[in-house]
Amino acid sequence: MGMVGGGRGAFIGGVHRMAAALDSQIELVCGAFSSDPERSRLSGEDFYLPADRVYGSYAEMIEKEQLLPEGERMDFVSIVTPNHLHYGPAKMALEHGFHVVCDKPLCFSMEEAEELVALVEETGLIFALTHNYTGYPMVKQARAMIKAGELGAIRKVVVEYPQGWLSTKLEDTEQKQAGWRTDPSRSGIAGAMGDIGTHAENLAEYITGLEITELCADLTAFVPGRQLDDDGNVLLRFSNGAKGVLHASQICAGEENDLNIRVYGTKGGFHWRQMEPNTLTVKWLDKPVEVRRTGVGELYPEATAHTRIPAGHPEGYLEAFANIYRNFAHCVRARLAGEAPDPLMLDYPGVKDGLRGMKFIQKVVASNNSKEKWIKI
Amino acid sequence: MGMVGGGRGAFIGGVHRMAAALDSQIELVCGAFSSDPERSRLSGEDFYLPADRVYGSYAEMIEKEQLLPEGERMDFVSIVTPNHLHYGPAKMALEHGFHVVCDKPLCFSMEEAEELVALVEETGLIFALTHNYTGYPMVKQARAMIKAGELGAIRKVVVEYPQGWLSTKLEDTEQKQAGWRTDPSRSGIAGAMGDIGTHAENLAEYITGLEITELCADLTAFVPGRQLDDDGNVLLRFSNGAKGVLHASQICAGEENDLNIRVYGTKGGFHWRQMEPNTLTVKWLDKPVEVRRTGVGELYPEATAHTRIPAGHPEGYLEAFANIYRNFAHCVRARLAGEAPDPLMLDYPGVKDGLRGMKFIQKVVASNNSKEKWIKI
Amino acid sequence: MGMVGGGRGAFIGGVHRMAAALDSQIELVCGAFSSDPERSRLSGEDFYLPADRVYGSYAEMIEKEQLLPEGERMDFVSIVTPNHLHYGPAKMALEHGFHVVCDKPLCFSMEEAEELVALVEETGLIFALTHNYTGYPMVKQARAMIKAGELGAIRKVVVEYPQGWLSTKLEDTEQKQAGWRTDPSRSGIAGAMGDIGTHAENLAEYITGLEITELCADLTAFVPGRQLDDDGNVLLRFSNGAKGVLHASQICAGEENDLNIRVYGTKGGFHWRQMEPNTLTVKWLDKPVEVRRTGVGELYPEATAHTRIPAGHPEGYLEAFANIYRNFAHCVRARLAGEAPDPLMLDYPGVKDGLRGMKFIQKVVASNNSKEKWIKI
Amino acid sequence: MGMVGGGRGAFIGGVHRMAAALDSQIELVCGAFSSDPERSRLSGEDFYLPADRVYGSYAEMIEKEQLLPEGERMDFVSIVTPNHLHYGPAKMALEHGFHVVCDKPLCFSMEEAEELVALVEETGLIFALTHNYTGYPMVKQARAMIKAGELGAIRKVVVEYPQGWLSTKLEDTEQKQAGWRTDPSRSGIAGAMGDIGTHAENLAEYITGLEITELCADLTAFVPGRQLDDDGNVLLRFSNGAKGVLHASQICAGEENDLNIRVYGTKGGFHWRQMEPNTLTVKWLDKPVEVRRTGVGELYPEATAHTRIPAGHPEGYLEAFANIYRNFAHCVRARLAGEAPDPLMLDYPGVKDGLRGMKFIQKVVASNNSKEKWIKI
Repeated sequence: MGMVGGGRGAFIGGVHRMAAALDSQIELVCGAFSSDPERSRLSGEDFYLPADRVYGSYAEMIEKEQLLPEGERMDFVSIVTPNHLHYGPAKMALEHGFHVVCDKPLCFSMEEAEELVALVEETGLIFALTHNYTGYPMVKQARAMIKAGELGAIRKVVVEYPQGWLSTKLEDTEQKQAGWRTDPSRSGIAGAMGDIGTHAENLAEYITGLEITELCADLTAFVPGRQLDDDGNVLLRFSNGAKGVLHASQICAGEENDLNIRVYGTKGGFHWRQMEPNTLTVKWLDKPVEVRRTGVGELYPEATAHTRIPAGHPEGYLEAFANIYRNFAHCVRARLAGEAPDPLMLDYPGVKDGLRGMKFIQKVVASNNSKEKWIKI
Repeated sequence: MGMVGGGRGAFIGGVHRMAAALDSQIELVCGAFSSDPERSRLSGEDFYLPADRVYGSYAEMIEKEQLLPEGERMDFVSIVTPNHLHYGPAKMALEHGFHVVCDKPLCFSMEEAEELVALVEETGLIFALTHNYTGYPMVKQARAMIKAGELGAIRKVVVEYPQGWLSTKLEDTEQKQAGWRTDPSRSGIAGAMGDIGTHAENLAEYITGLEITELCADLTAFVPGRQLDDDGNVLLRFSNGAKGVLHASQICAGEENDLNIRVYGTKGGFHWRQMEPNTLTVKWLDKPVEVRRTGVGELYPEATAHTRIPAGHPEGYLEAFANIYRNFAHCVRARLAGEAPDPLMLDYPGVKDGLRGMKFIQKVVASNNSKEKWIKI
Repeated sequence: MGMVGGGRGAFIGGVHRMAAALDSQIELVCGAFSSDPERSRLSGEDFYLPADRVYGSYAEMIEKEQLLPEGERMDFVSIVTPNHLHYGPAKMALEHGFHVVCDKPLCFSMEEAEELVALVEETGLIFALTHNYTGYPMVKQARAMIKAGELGAIRKVVVEYPQGWLSTKLEDTEQKQAGWRTDPSRSGIAGAMGDIGTHAENLAEYITGLEITELCADLTAFVPGRQLDDDGNVLLRFSNGAKGVLHASQICAGEENDLNIRVYGTKGGFHWRQMEPNTLTVKWLDKPVEVRRTGVGELYPEATAHTRIPAGHPEGYLEAFANIYRNFAHCVRARLAGEAPDPLMLDYPGVKDGLRGMKFIQKVVASNNSKEKWIKI
Repeated sequence: MGMVGGGRGAFIGGVHRMAAALDSQIELVCGAFSSDPERSRLSGEDFYLPADRVYGSYAEMIEKEQLLPEGERMDFVSIVTPNHLHYGPAKMALEHGFHVVCDKPLCFSMEEAEELVALVEETGLIFALTHNYTGYPMVKQARAMIKAGELGAIRKVVVEYPQGWLSTKLEDTEQKQAGWRTDPSRSGIAGAMGDIGTHAENLAEYITGLEITELCADLTAFVPGRQLDDDGNVLLRFSNGAKGVLHASQICAGEENDLNIRVYGTKGGFHWRQMEPNTLTVKWLDKPVEVRRTGVGELYPEATAHTRIPAGHPEGYLEAFANIYRNFAHCVRARLAGEAPDPLMLDYPGVKDGLRGMKFIQKVVASNNSKEKWIKI
């Protein structure tokens, strides 16, 4: 693995490194960790990399690695930069024959997104997008239950993503994360909706297997002087006639990272909450509520395949994140070996999920600016 | 107390009787318990009433009771019939000088609602509407906290009322409750939104002290053949610029009666849930989450005045409901005695809350039928 | 109902009055509310009683009421005084032919307890002891599940009753409740163990249908200067070979009234917690955890018969307490009518539960004072 | 790192490998993964190890690695075999100058334990014992709060470790974990008490900073034919006069791995539960309950230093386990570099915790066999 971004002071880069390391299937071999070459060099030292595999830019990394003999050069690129810096390295990596893991959202604009989709199709390379919340075992279980028809026809979806960390004008401090996320030139046309709303959208579509077809959005920048939305409420309509609500916010003072989803069908419903991710509360029309738990009892193979340790030993955010890396690595390894991958390991978010997320952002912003009630997606 | 409705087979009448009895301040002295005189008579026997105080109709009850000497006749009328039968007895009771307790929603149409408001103003009689969920001590605490500015300026409100009991076409069975609630001729223009959406609206406005000024609604009748909405999602805008979401449903399979509300301001937020009503979870921008509990520690007098037993002895639905009756009875007694009521006891929902609820129903239905995004309320 | 104790400033008397009133089956007709006749008189006014039915002592009440014509005089006596004042009025009431409701623990000493048991047997009168925590619907459900063998053979019981309100020397203040509870001359040989440990013991035996046969106790008075235990830990052995732990405390700073019980058998187990009494969490060896809830789905008739309102409308402490009064009243009424009571209504704690509790207190204290590991009960 | 045990089919070995890999500070370079050389060889392939670093026995590994040049040979040994196979490799590794990480309990007998303690002292080598549950950030927070006196003087400790997985005679199946844990020749004199009771003991002493000085135990083998205890209830007395209860069980049908602890002092108390490890519920004598959370607000440096990701991104069992490896690796690295380790990183369980655990096992079994109430520890 060669990493783009994620040097000293960054947040998500460290998460990617831990997620990649957990299963001892992936080795960090090189990186361009910062646009500042000195910072990149120091970061490389932190990771015990040889100096000649620490590059000053992603372009240099991709070019030089390509010249290394097979087996020695990196097998794939992991992109962990802010949104506006996804497209460049992703495109170049694909064009130079490297598989890609990319943080979400996919990129900055619809045009970029469509170009990346086309490039992945052309090259046939493997592309994973880290919509990590779908990596949890009980999310897999929830999706499998719906797919198997256990809940009947889906009628209602409520997906929420409240955070509170941007309740004040944190971007006026040195806080790097707040800085780029509230800056349209680095984050794109949406704030909270791009940063976390897309996770909610992705989770809802992943779990239900449905597509959002229409939406009606009300976005707000509550903190005075902020340019991008820090709160949004959206009515949803799904492909099968189900209705829903999505709300995401970064000004829900006191909330941590409370992504959660409820889905109701004709036979039952469930609730899953990221902050207690090993529990899936299933409610039935005609039986008692069941508490399904990671590793406990008969679960779908999709859940079991993404569980590492026995029941009651809580698996967390990093393990879910690592599931994307593990599945991606499995598929890359199978490709290198010319073997068919385990079908259960084909389950990771890809470039089309990224495109879908970009569309969601675009339509939510359009709806917010419109007097019409419904915008098609 | 003389009761209209609530005979054998009814649900809410029994709740009213228990709520009225709890504090030994109110005695059921007469009733017209059913439009079927024989059922009314038998119900009267159940309640150990003398036969001559059990009437065949509310009109007969009001007329005959008025002829009894003061001190012997009923002091007030309690109306516990389906929605379309609130207006008649309420109007007649007021016109004959009786105070009134009325179940919600206030009545059937905006015209009726406005007439009742005018009549209460004219007569100066005491009118309580049983929006019982505002009777819980921790709801009082929540309201007092906001009033005192503890949360800062309110930015976001999420109020939910999911139930699952109408997930199937229960109205085709003998279930009396389902029957009238899904019948436009007895329930009015809205189903779930009238039955429980108004509770959510009332709770949100009561707790925040704000008014909903605009809304955008998407209502659905999911169960085939049902005439009234059994699910609704609504975007809200409040008088002070706060935004919100209200959703209420009777097709959330497996849900019981999960009314709950979250409110966030600039300084903090809270969560209150009717099914665990003695807990108010308060989240702060800069302090740990606090769990406030009925009867524990320093609470606002508004909460303490509505608490009967010590901490850790759970108070429930009936106690909250009884708080309305107790406050109402206190005010009636004070009126009879020519004394000023305790200001804390003036806190019960009245005819104006009823009018507000009727407006909400009207606007939600109008919004659902409109292509315009926002409808003013 | 004629009440002994429970005048102004008392706590449990008010609870008994609300519990008795809730179902409109019992009327307070007289009382001797305080050993101070003036306080008794004023309390009688609070309850709207005629002056001639408010007595200066329980002896006066019992004597004078007996002289009133049947149908007019009280049907039973409710005793809500501190522990040392249970025996006198209970004995006299029984001797004068009155049924009795008595607060727990039954009395002050084993001798008194045995005398009362004998007296109830001789007279055939109805005697209810308000071990109110067994009145909750989900406790009934739990008991019925075990009785039906759903959990298999019981192996382990953990019953806890932590409170924190006596963490400081509250008895040195004016707090009346703390005063008598920590005073050996009014409370008996045990403090926390008598006050709340007996509730835990009663709950464990009631739910499991087993008897504690041996115990090993470690009691402590943590607060300096306190004469009676404010904390106790007890190992338990049950009649069928099951093992268990009981701990009760009034110095668990910050705890409210957290009585709870877990029971495990060969097939499954459950957890019930008084502070969220409408939930019974059932765990199975080979199926997912089930959350059973008051009023939801198929429950045992024992649970349903003690439920007043639909699912999701929380029933609390007063409703559980009222179940004892309602069942007692039903049995008294059936006796008066010469009819057989509904078998489900025969379920209320009686004088033998009281004797059992007195034995528990005696043995726990004996064990604490002994160097031997096991004391038989 | 060279690993002893943990080949194909083992459980805890995989946990150790993931924990060691997470932070990219430790590399698995060699191993003797099984007493079966072929299984060891295959396991080595699974881990991408060169064939010549996969050994047939721990003795071979230690001898051959010692011959490798510094910088190339393993820096330490990680022992992940069943209990009876800890002592041999630990002793030999220490005698050959290798630092050691060892799974718990330390070894098989008191004699072995004392010998290992002496050996660690003599050699000055670094020894970590994986009492992993003390690795959670909120356990660190709890300990720091008590150390700082926030709870006042500690009065009561309740520590529980219920599991249900041995409710049936699982050892009669192929289940390898059940096999050795219930076999006195491999597990030692205690079953559940050795396997999980020691975790509970370690957690209680770690968090409170107190020592258990006396205990009274009741152990049971509930499953017919089982030789070692599968359930135990223990009364505790602590060095400062605090009292407590410890119970651990593997026959609590339906329980997963519910290690939890409550501690109460004169000023407040708290509850921590391993299955939701990022929450520490703190209760106060005179303030509302506080919910402290990993990564949220002002926490003690001890907690923050053991947290990897921001609030609301749940950290789990592997992260807590990895904290031991990370701290151990830090100390080994500092030793190699001749530098002083970060004081916060000195916090990992060591050989003396292991000795303490062995004493606990010995005394619990002795108490169970005794008629005397209290056994000193």
